[in-house]
Formats: sequence, structure tokens, C-alpha cells
Amino acid sequence: MFMGKIKTLSLKLEDQKLFILDQTLLPHKELWVEVLSPEQMCDIIVQLKVRGAPLIGVAAGLSLALYAIGGATENEYLKACERLRSTRPTAVNLMWVIDQLIKAATTAYNPEELFNMAVQFCQEDIELCQKIAQAGAELIKDGDQILTHCNTGGLATAGVGTALGVIAEAHRQGKKIHVYVDETRPLLQGARLTTWELEKLNIPYTLICDNMAAHLMSLGKITKAIVGADRIATNGDFANKIGTYTVALSCHYHNIPFYVAAPYTTIDFSCSRGEQIEIELRSPAEVLGVHGAFESVIWSPKTANTYNPAFDVTPAKLVTSWVIDRGVFTSPTF
Amino acid sequence: MFMGKIKTLSLKLEDQKLFILDQTLLPHKELWVEVLSPEQMCDIIVQLKVRGAPLIGVAAGLSLALYAIGGATENEYLKACERLRSTRPTAVNLMWVIDQLIKAATTAYNPEELFNMAVQFCQEDIELCQKIAQAGAELIKDGDQILTHCNTGGLATAGVGTALGVIAEAHRQGKKIHVYVDETRPLLQGARLTTWELEKLNIPYTLICDNMAAHLMSLGKITKAIVGADRIATNGDFANKIGTYTVALSCHYHNIPFYVAAPYTTIDFSCSRGEQIEIELRSPAEVLGVHGAFESVIWSPKTANTYNPAFDVTPAKLVTSWVIDRGVFTSPTF
Repeated sequence: MFMGKIKTLSLKLEDQKLFILDQTLLPHKELWVEVLSPEQMCDIIVQLKVRGAPLIGVAAGLSLALYAIGGATENEYLKACERLRSTRPTAVNLMWVIDQLIKAATTAYNPEELFNMAVQFCQEDIELCQKIAQAGAELIKDGDQILTHCNTGGLATAGVGTALGVIAEAHRQGKKIHVYVDETRPLLQGARLTTWELEKLNIPYTLICDNMAAHLMSLGKITKAIVGADRIATNGDFANKIGTYTVALSCHYHNIPFYVAAPYTTIDFSCSRGEQIEIELRSPAEVLGVHGAFESVIWSPKTANTYNPAFDVTPAKLVTSWVIDRGVFTSPTF
Repeated sequence: MFMGKIKTLSLKLEDQKLFILDQTLLPHKELWVEVLSPEQMCDIIVQLKVRGAPLIGVAAGLSLALYAIGGATENEYLKACERLRSTRPTAVNLMWVIDQLIKAATTAYNPEELFNMAVQFCQEDIELCQKIAQAGAELIKDGDQILTHCNTGGLATAGVGTALGVIAEAHRQGKKIHVYVDETRPLLQGARLTTWELEKLNIPYTLICDNMAAHLMSLGKITKAIVGADRIATNGDFANKIGTYTVALSCHYHNIPFYVAAPYTTIDFSCSRGEQIEIELRSPAEVLGVHGAFESVIWSPKTANTYNPAFDVTPAKLVTSWVIDRGVFTSPTF
């Protein structure tokens, strides 16, 4: 019997059983789903039941390790690695984790070792989040009104989160802050998930539509913005949830500090510029309406032509600081 | 029997009966509602069954005139004027129409004359739209990929529209154009109404979420943006549907021409700067989810704190040209 017990906001490992909190059902329903195979984990990731670049890396790693322990041959294991690696093309953490697990297996296919590695990735992510939170909290002042986009907390990582971890840590330190939450169309991770986390953390917040943030900035109601990242190029350009670029532009115009927070595993050292980052395009259905525990609704003409990039790229010149576990960088000299 | 027969995309007057197309049910259901009193028209406007600054002016005027014809005393009529005037504090066209109808009534309360005035406002709006469309179409070139926000067509005016009227006229002239439609949260006038109109006009379009436009601009996929206005200050600042300011900022950053199209009745000569424009705040329910013919859905925590301004103000310095019925102005010298 291999040891390793994990309990995070959105992931549980117990007696070699892996459970994930189905994020598509939040905030109305908290349902834990047992993950029985890497194949199922692929579906879970594609359907965004598990999401957030660091978290999908950790979750994918654990499902692969359990597959190996469960008796998969090396060949089956490597095939599953490739399959999982292709589920979300923009999230570099996922690739980072899987590359490590492939490398280890091709050196010597030892399920116990792979399992220990996967558990270690999880623990490492928890520690990275803690370091990011501590480094970033230094940037937050009493009275700050902080805009955030998408979800970057315990539902996006195995730990306290990245951007939301910074906010949570500042609050824990007793700083009086208020959070403005972009709802984050089309999948509403802000409206559904960040609000849910902020309520649990007891941090005061205001939910807004994505197109309201610039107006709030013009009224002086936002003093800082902090977001996460799915992939950071070595020149500091980064991909993050669609809408992030608009937040950055709006901050730039209003001279509001704009921070990006992520673990070093998000930096893609093989990618020198943002233009090289592949942007995942998703289904038209997400733009035509909404789908979730709250029902499916299509408000547009059903045949409407749509465009649905899951991410956009924010150039380094719009970033005030990169908050990495290794510290706060005012230029991309990671 | 007073004469006057009107049939527009969203308004019908026949045998002294006024009907409006219930825009909250579009695009899935086309339901005409008879308006039996100014009181009912107030509800219709507040519920956004009729919307669009020029259209609500025209619709309110007709309901008041029919009320006078139907036997309302001058006192009842003036009270109804005041009530309607307060339904949407940002839309200046509404106030313009009602001020004219009050002025006429206090000079001499003549229902027949009021009715003729109201019909004339409608005909005037149709003509103003036509002039705006012709002036604005000059700005549109073959191959343009035009971003628009909210709905500014035949569902927002009595005529072909303002910004969407310009687009429709350019298309009618045979210019090959493609329209990017901002869905326009929270009420989705873009996703529900502009798409519906563009399908009727057979103009190719792509529906996007509001937070995707800047990303498209960074990819060179948008060559122009054109929007409407609810109120224009004499210095050229203007209020329009929330999210317009973000479109303007994004165009500014990417050096993309940004046009605002509106009839002269949208210019508020008593307002010298955008800061003086009162911004209507609407119900939290609109941000917590969506409501329409397609069902009511709440995807956020039901108790979430929200902020829901219906409009924002775009400063004149972000405007390339003001397309008014009187011509295209590159500075606010209306």
C-alpha cells in the first residue's frame, strides 16, 4: 500500500483513491467525483470540472501515478501521458508535470516512484502558492481595492492559489482590502468560483461584469489589479484567461499597478515571446449562452457564428511586476 | 379619428393603437404588446421591453399623445410626462421628446396637436437615422471588420439605427464588411438583438464576449469600432452602454478608429462635460445571472454584492469622429 493523503479545497487523495470537486457545479452544488482512470481525467479536464493551470498539472499527475500503481503497463502509461498532455494546449504546468513523469518512467518504470513524484508535485504546488502569497502580499496596502479576473485560488491550484492567494494572504495579515471580481465570461469562473472562495475566506468583494472594470477605474475605485497566468514567456509576455489583456490595457491607461502571480512552473523557458503561445479555441456553445448546475441557457440565435479563444496574451510592457514564488520581479529576469 | 400609421422594426401604430415588440423575448420569440397607458409604458421601459435612447423617446411620446387623445386631462397628462421622464435618467432623447410635449401642452393643451407632434418625432427619428447612416457609411471601407457594442439598430431607434444603421448602409452600398458583435453583458443586447438584426440584414458577423475584443484587436482582426450614445456632452464626452469605454480604450491602444453615431437629439446642450452625466444603476439580479425568454438563471452566490452601472462615460479624447445626422465631426463642434 502506497502512502500519501492529500486534502485541498478541490482535490482529495485517500487510500489511493483520487477525488476532485466538480467545479462546473459550483457555487450551487459541491459534488466530489472519484477519478477512476486517466481517460476520465482527460474528460474532467476538457469539461473544466478541474481547471486552473497549476491544479490540472497536479490532478493529471496523480491520475497517471494511480494508473501506474493500478497495473498499467509502461506503454499504456506513456500513452495516457500523451493523451493528458494534449487536453489543454495553453497550460504549461500540465506539460511540465507530464514531461517529468514521462522522463522518470522512461528512465525506469517504477509505479511507486511515479506515485511519490505526483504527490510531491502536489506538495510542491502548495509550497509554491505559499511563497507567492507571501511575496505578493507585500505589494498590497491597507485600503486597496483590488481587481481580479477568473479564478486563481484554491480551486485553481493545490494550495492557497496564485493571485487570489496573494489577496487571501494580505487579508490574513489584517490589511483592509476590497476585491472587485470580474465575472469572466464565457465560463464565469469569477462569478461562480472566485466569489465562492471569497465568501469562504470572508473577504469583502463586489462582483462585476468584465466590461465594467475600466469604468470603475475611471472613477478611482480600483487601486490595483492582480491576475494569474497559464504560461509565461521568458520575455515576460504571458497567456491567461481571456479578458486579462483588457484588464492590463485598462490598468495601463489609468496608471494602476497590474500584477501577474504564478509559480515558476508557469514559465516556459522554451518560449521567448507571447506570440509563440498557442491559444486554445473552445466550443461556440460557451459563447451562445451558459451551461452549469444552474441549467443550460442559450440566449443568442443558435446558429450565430462565434469566436471563443480561452486565453489571450498580455505583453510584458503592460505588467508592473511578476509575482513568482522566487520573489517579485519588476522586469522579466526570472 | 386622428391619422398616423407607423410600422418600424419594433414599433407599430395603427388605428390609434400602439404596439411594441417585446425585446426581452428576442431572439427566440417575437411578441407584440399593445401599450394601453403611459403607466404601462413606464413599466415597459424600465423592464427594457423597449430600449435604445432614440426609441424610448419616440415610444414614450406616442404613449403620451394617445393618452391625451383618449381623454386624459392636462393635469393627468403632465403627471404622466413627469413619470415617463424619470424612467431612464441617462437617455437624453427621452427627456428631449417629453420636454417638447410638456412645452406644447402648457402653451395650449390640444391632444390632436400633441398626437401630430409625437408622430412627427417618430418620422424625424427615421430621417435622422437615414442621415446618420449615409454620413457614417462614408467612413466604412471595403474589407472593414467592424466592432460594435450593444444594440443600435432598428430595435434601438424608429429608423435603421445609429451605429448599426451605418453598418447596414455600408453593406447596402455593397461594401464587403464583417461585424464583430460584443455580447454586451449584463443584458446581452449584442448577443440577443444585434445578432437578430444582422441575421435579418444578412450581414456576416461574429459574436464575441465583451472581454475578447482587445485580443482580436491585438491580432489585427478589427479595423474599426462604431457605437451609439445615450447622451453626448457639448465637449464630446458621451455616455453609452456599459462597456463602451473599454472598447474606446482598446481602440485607442491599438490605433483603431473609434466612432460614435447618434442623432443631434442625443446632444445635451445643458451638459458641458461627461462627469455631469448621471449614470443609472440597475438591479443586482442582472449581474448575478441572466433573465429572459430563455429562462432565468443565477450562476453566482445569490447574496453576492454587485455593482451594476447601465452606462459608462467615454471621454472625447478617445473618439475619432462623431457621426451625427448633420455630418461627421472630427472634433466636438456640433
